[in-house]
Amino acid sequence: MQHEISTARSEVNTRNFLVVIAYNGKHYHGWQIQDNALTVQEVFQNALEKIIQQTPYEIKGCSRTDSGVHANKYCISLKMAHNIPCYRLQTALNRFLPKDISVLDVQEKSFDFHARYSCKSKQYIYKIWNSSVRNPFLDGLVYEYRFPIDEKLLDKACKAYIGRHDFTSFCTIDNSRKSDNMERTVKDFSVRREGDMVIMTVEADGFLYNMVRIMVGTLMKIAQGKFEPDCIGRIIDAKDRSKAGATAPACGLYLNEVRY
Amino acid sequence: MQHEISTARSEVNTRNFLVVIAYNGKHYHGWQIQDNALTVQEVFQNALEKIIQQTPYEIKGCSRTDSGVHANKYCISLKMAHNIPCYRLQTALNRFLPKDISVLDVQEKSFDFHARYSCKSKQYIYKIWNSSVRNPFLDGLVYEYRFPIDEKLLDKACKAYIGRHDFTSFCTIDNSRKSDNMERTVKDFSVRREGDMVIMTVEADGFLYNMVRIMVGTLMKIAQGKFEPDCIGRIIDAKDRSKAGATAPACGLYLNEVRY
Repeated sequence: MQHEISTARSEVNTRNFLVVIAYNGKHYHGWQIQDNALTVQEVFQNALEKIIQQTPYEIKGCSRTDSGVHANKYCISLKMAHNIPCYRLQTALNRFLPKDISVLDVQEKSFDFHARYSCKSKQYIYKIWNSSVRNPFLDGLVYEYRFPIDEKLLDKACKAYIGRHDFTSFCTIDNSRKSDNMERTVKDFSVRREGDMVIMTVEADGFLYNMVRIMVGTLMKIAQGKFEPDCIGRIIDAKDRSKAGATAPACGLYLNEVRY
Repeated sequence: MQHEISTARSEVNTRNFLVVIAYNGKHYHGWQIQDNALTVQEVFQNALEKIIQQTPYEIKGCSRTDSGVHANKYCISLKMAHNIPCYRLQTALNRFLPKDISVLDVQEKSFDFHARYSCKSKQYIYKIWNSSVRNPFLDGLVYEYRFPIDEKLLDKACKAYIGRHDFTSFCTIDNSRKSDNMERTVKDFSVRREGDMVIMTVEADGFLYNMVRIMVGTLMKIAQGKFEPDCIGRIIDAKDRSKAGATAPACGLYLNEVRY
């Protein structure tokens, strides 16, 4: 069980770890613990508790991720009064975690470090397998799309996302995730091709619920010729979810990097 | 049911197809049909029979592959008197096949083409994930090896495989796969690194049972410092399986290309 260690700051023995993990999200309902579905957080905590036994701990993920979304570098902050060395915590976690979750790094941080609130920006990538023939090694790891994609056209169009904007048009309405401030700063957006794979990369100071997937879905409308290549500025201005494209499938999305 | 269409040559309507497939071998006991285990051939024939119904056919794979081995381009020859166009056979097969098998191409060939006997050479690759931390996206798709591998040393050492040799030392003894002639011509062998992945590539006019996996296992002994870097010539000369390294795991092996 996770405990709130509210008195932790006064405990001189309490340490604050940054744990970086990669996970294949195919079989998980995202990061955040839920009552009726298997999540990465639950599996991670089960592994952790085998190592630290009854030691109280406090854990924070850098973001929720949706069901089926993957992570190349997901960041977790973990507070606990336990004297395990970082490298030993990493190897022990990797021993107890299943093959679709991997601990890449464990570092000790200052007490005020927080995986979510200390974050300056996050980078996501979105992978589209763009071929009439599926790739048997990438089931659940890409969005499969068989019709031609002009990645150069999309790379030009996506630049309209860059800057500080109200992204209401690119947010799924969800009362449990309501945000007063719908403004976010998109620092970079690009679309490139590697063979049959089209890769979209976006970095921002934060993301609204489903924001990347709706941005991708809107670019796909441009690829299909259903939206004009210069539509994105107008869709941002409209502040209306119904003006943007569909929410692209979760399986193509990877949390790629978190910057602190 | 597969039928021997012995009178096929005299039937003017019988066509001979080359079907190229890719498959993730993780859940299969290799290509060749078996009584008590799921194989790629069985799954392929089930899909085919949904399309061609009762039409008799004759099917030949380019090689057996071991349980757990993958293929980027596996070649099948298929004789049948059916008027389906090639592109339609491809899309129909892809509709009925599971996500871990994919038909890349279907072509019509002359009647004497045979996936196995017409083959001039085959190329295999072997993938080693060389990191202390596993990759959660590659479970079952690589051989995981955590200790350092000097790929430049192995690239030099492996050149001793090239040429026409008796490869008895690199063949698992199996009476059901006995070969009178143990000589094969290795046309090329190389070892390179892409980040944490070490990739071995070998091309030969033919391979004995487990030959690639024993060649890889022997190179791993050199990587570990247990065998001298110049040992391969002596192991070939010994014609003794016990002198070579262990058979490397199947999950790293891919049939990459078949040349006709």
